[in-house]
Parts: sequence; C-alpha cells; structure tokens
Amino acid sequence: MRIGLDMMGGDFAPAAAVKGVKLFLDTVASDAHLVLIGDESQLVPLLAEAQVDQSKYSVVHSSQVIGMNEHPTKALKEKPQSSISIGFHLLKNEKIDAFISAGNTGAMMVGTFYSIKAIEGVQRPTISTLVPRENGSQGLMLDVGINADCKPENLVQFAILGSLYSKHILKVDNPKVGLLNIGEEEGKGNLLAQATYPLLKENKQINFIGNIEGRDVLSEKADVIVCEGFTGNIILKMAESIYDIAARRNINDEYLNKLDSESYGGTPVLGVNKPVIIGHGISQNVAFKNMILLAQQMIESKLLEKIQESFHSGN
Amino acid sequence: MRIGLDMMGGDFAPAAAVKGVKLFLDTVASDAHLVLIGDESQLVPLLAEAQVDQSKYSVVHSSQVIGMNEHPTKALKEKPQSSISIGFHLLKNEKIDAFISAGNTGAMMVGTFYSIKAIEGVQRPTISTLVPRENGSQGLMLDVGINADCKPENLVQFAILGSLYSKHILKVDNPKVGLLNIGEEEGKGNLLAQATYPLLKENKQINFIGNIEGRDVLSEKADVIVCEGFTGNIILKMAESIYDIAARRNINDEYLNKLDSESYGGTPVLGVNKPVIIGHGISQNVAFKNMILLAQQMIESKLLEKIQESFHSGN
Repeated sequence: MRIGLDMMGGDFAPAAAVKGVKLFLDTVASDAHLVLIGDESQLVPLLAEAQVDQSKYSVVHSSQVIGMNEHPTKALKEKPQSSISIGFHLLKNEKIDAFISAGNTGAMMVGTFYSIKAIEGVQRPTISTLVPRENGSQGLMLDVGINADCKPENLVQFAILGSLYSKHILKVDNPKVGLLNIGEEEGKGNLLAQATYPLLKENKQINFIGNIEGRDVLSEKADVIVCEGFTGNIILKMAESIYDIAARRNINDEYLNKLDSESYGGTPVLGVNKPVIIGHGISQNVAFKNMILLAQQMIESKLLEKIQESFHSGN
Repeated sequence: MRIGLDMMGGDFAPAAAVKGVKLFLDTVASDAHLVLIGDESQLVPLLAEAQVDQSKYSVVHSSQVIGMNEHPTKALKEKPQSSISIGFHLLKNEKIDAFISAGNTGAMMVGTFYSIKAIEGVQRPTISTLVPRENGSQGLMLDVGINADCKPENLVQFAILGSLYSKHILKVDNPKVGLLNIGEEEGKGNLLAQATYPLLKENKQINFIGNIEGRDVLSEKADVIVCEGFTGNIILKMAESIYDIAARRNINDEYLNKLDSESYGGTPVLGVNKPVIIGHGISQNVAFKNMILLAQQMIESKLLEKIQESFHSGN
C-alpha cells in the first residue's frame, strides 16, 4: 500500500511531518510505502538528518504551497503544483491509496469533493472526531464542522458511516449510536432532533440507543454520537480548550491529556471513495504518526469498500 | 423585600433548602424577609434544629408537591396546593418579590409563562448559565435549553437581555457580546448564525464583538455568549460533566471546581415580569444560598425595570 502525505501542510511544516514519518516508521510495524509530497530541497536534507529509512519512502516534488488562509477553490485552481493539488492528482490516478494533509482544510475538502467524489448514495460526506473515554476506549462524534445545517436523512447517514468506522477501525462490536440531544426521551429536542429520532429508531443498519445529552459526550454511553456539524464543531473545540486550560493550570491528568487534538491526529472524510485524512494545522509529530497509522488501518480494513457495499445495498 | 423559596423542590428537599437558608442568613448581609413555602410539619422542626433566626422568615404551608417527573401543565392544574403553585400565586399577587425553586423545571417554566408572563416586546423568555472564567470573572451564556429552535431576532433579544444582566448583576461595564459559531469571520456558520450576525452588528443596544468559537466559551473573549438553546444546553451539560470527571479523578483544581453546577446556583428566567430563579434538581445548600443572593441582587439592581425600559423603548 502507498500512503501519500502532504509534507507542506500545517503550522510546523515540513519539520513536523518529517518527524511524524520517522516516528511512524520507528514505532509501527508496517509494509506501507510513504509518498512524501513537498519541496524536495527542504525535504531531502530533513529526511537525511532524521535518518529515515530510504527504502520506505519516495519524495514527489511540489513547487507550490497552498497557505492556511487562502481561498480553497481559487488556490486549487491557481496552484496545480501545490502539494495538495498533486496529492489529489496522485490519489485520483491510483498512484497512492490514501492522502493525508494538515494543510488548508477548505482546500482539502474541495479537493476531496472534486477529485475523489462522494460514494454513490451518500448525500453529505462528513468529518468526525474521536472521543476519548475514561476507560481508554474511543467513541466517534460526527459531523464536526462541514455540515452546519443538516436534514434528518443526513444524520441517519452519519450514523451508518460512523457505525462502520467504529466497527472496522475502532473495533467496537455492534457500536451503540446515540443522537445528541437536550433530553433523554423521544420527542425532546429541536425540530431536527425530533425528526431524526424515529428515522434512527427504524433503521436496521445501526444499533440506536436513543438520545444522549451533553453530559454523556465523554462517557461510554454511545460509541457513535450523531449531530449536525454546528453543535459538533463547538463541542469539539470546547473539549480541546479544556485540554489547553488543564495544561495551563499544570494539571497533568492522563485522561484530560487525551483531549489534546495532537493525540488523535486527524479526521478522515467519511463517505468519499478514497481515504482522505485532514489534520489540525497545529499537528506535530504524534499527530502525523497517528494519521499515517489511520490511513493504513483504513486501507487494511477495507473500510471504504464496506461503506460502498452498505450504501449500495440501500438504506 | 420578600423572597419566596420553594422548600420542597429538588432531590434533597427540604433539608438542602433549609441549610441554604441558614447559610444565606449567616453569610450575607441582607434585610430580605424569606417566605419559605413547604410542608409545615417538615419545615418547622428542621428550621428550629438549624437555629434559623425566626425574625427573618415566615413559613407558608403547602400540602402538595409536584414531583420532578410530573407533567408540568397537568401537575400545576391538579395540584393548586403545591409549593410551586403557591409560589406563583404569591408572586403574581405581589406577596413576594421573587420566587426560587429547584423543583420540576417544566412546571417552573409553565408557571412563569402563565402567571408572570413575558415582558412586552420580548418574544422568547430565556434561561442562561453563568460561565466561570480563569481570571475569576463570570460570563453569561444564553439560551441554555428552553428555546431549542430560534430565529435570528430571538438571538438578538437574548443578546440584549444578557447584556443587561451582565451589566447590572455581574457588574461588567459595556459587556462584549459574542455569537457562538464555527468560524470567526462574518458569513461562517449555519443559516441561523449567518442571518443573526448582521442583526447583532447593526444593533445599537449591545457591544457586539463578532463570532466566537467553542474554544472561546470558557475564555474572557465575550461576556455574553449568544446561541440557541440546543447548542447552549449541550455545552452547559458537557461543562458540568468535566467537573464530574475531574472530581472522579481526584483533580482538585480551583477553576475546574467552578464548573460544578452547585457553585452557580440557579438560572433566572430572563424576559419575564418578575424575578424567577430555577435551580438544578441536585442543588445543595450552596446553590440555594446563591439563588437567594441572586434574587436579592435582581431586586436591588432593579434589573427587571431596566429590561422593561429597554424593550419598551424599542429595539
């Protein structure tokens, strides 16, 4: 398998990505070949200095970089030699099996939708976040930002996508799906939640356990937490701020430390035809390592084929 | 001033309320007379045992209690001798100047709307939560649950109500209003946030500083955080769960401890004609003390008159 990595994306590029590659190769048993996309003149000395095993990677030169604040569509059009543009070109043409970037999120989303496209039957591809729990297990919450306004059917599809991810990547058996809401009983909530509940309840592809509340987000009550991207994004960023507060206050707690975005790496775009993983701009070596590992798991588990089958069979 | 208190509401009634009354009288300089509504046969011995100064309170007997899970409208109708029904009767007839309960939230809301009514011009009364910040100051977030679906104009009114509360109760000079959103720039967010932004921007009654994100909720960026009650409620309950997690993990941090609902007491219903304060079911003595103090502050500061003037003058 060949995993493509944008070396020029993120606030600490390319050094953080190089360190992430080194960490991955040093700590993960893998036969993946890494395709490192970036400015050769910067990458080659950094890779040599880090003593990265040359048999495990190739460098694909890119002469342009899309900045973190550039307009996505415009930047992709005007910078065909950027690392992100080249990454999607390689992914589309099957030169790589997955593409990872901590660069401009908008450009990554636009690139994904135009080059890779949504899986047939998926109305709205989605991004998710891993939710650390005190017992060490991981939940999944989706959407966390790209679908700010949703219809009930979108949330049902998020439930299916999240359940497949939970099962095949997080290895959760029969993952419990919870609808994020402001009350436990059916009928509670805003109009969207009220309309979504019966659709989730009747859906045979998922294990729906009912509504969950804000206090349950970090608990083990549900393995897959479904919400529109407005609420999901705000919760995600608030959780990250709890980590920042704890760090600032010298609270060194194993669990609160896991709320750091660095520890979970990046989010896959679910519902598209190839593995695409988007990292936080502030990603450091651990985040890059975890994103490469996630790409490997997505390829090995054949997650996307399973999603395609699931939506092909109709839901 | 006369402050009415439902002694039978909440999970630890009436003992917690009695302890709260004692704590208030022992620690707060006040000329308030407390009207304690509840079962005389339970209250009298508890008050005697706690050695509460008899000149500071009267007991109004109630022979019924509305349970935490009863249907609000039905319960209010069928239990006219309940502590909540009597409290609203006293408030409506100006026998008390404020009413506090940690009982059935739905019954408190219904009672408020039917007995006390919304201030003219206020489309949607709202409930808020205090937001503790690391520097010791307090922000305000609203709505936190009774208005799950909102229109842009509702959010503008929450901004005005919250600003007046922040100014007159929290003593914040020219409080900064932030719109809770998933991006900083104007134009970001869901349809509601997109439509609300320009209305807040053009409103002369408030000091709008733009969008704030999930990571800013617990910061000093905005003094008044405006959102619909779906997102607000989920954030509030998640913040409370952070306190629970910290407590469970023996993290004893002064700031995280403030995320405990006990420390902020209860939420006033803003936008109605009299001070009504609703407490958490799990309220203990500190929460009751803080709710009585808040009622006193609302009366002393003439907050409701200021809200009435503000909406009377048009916005």
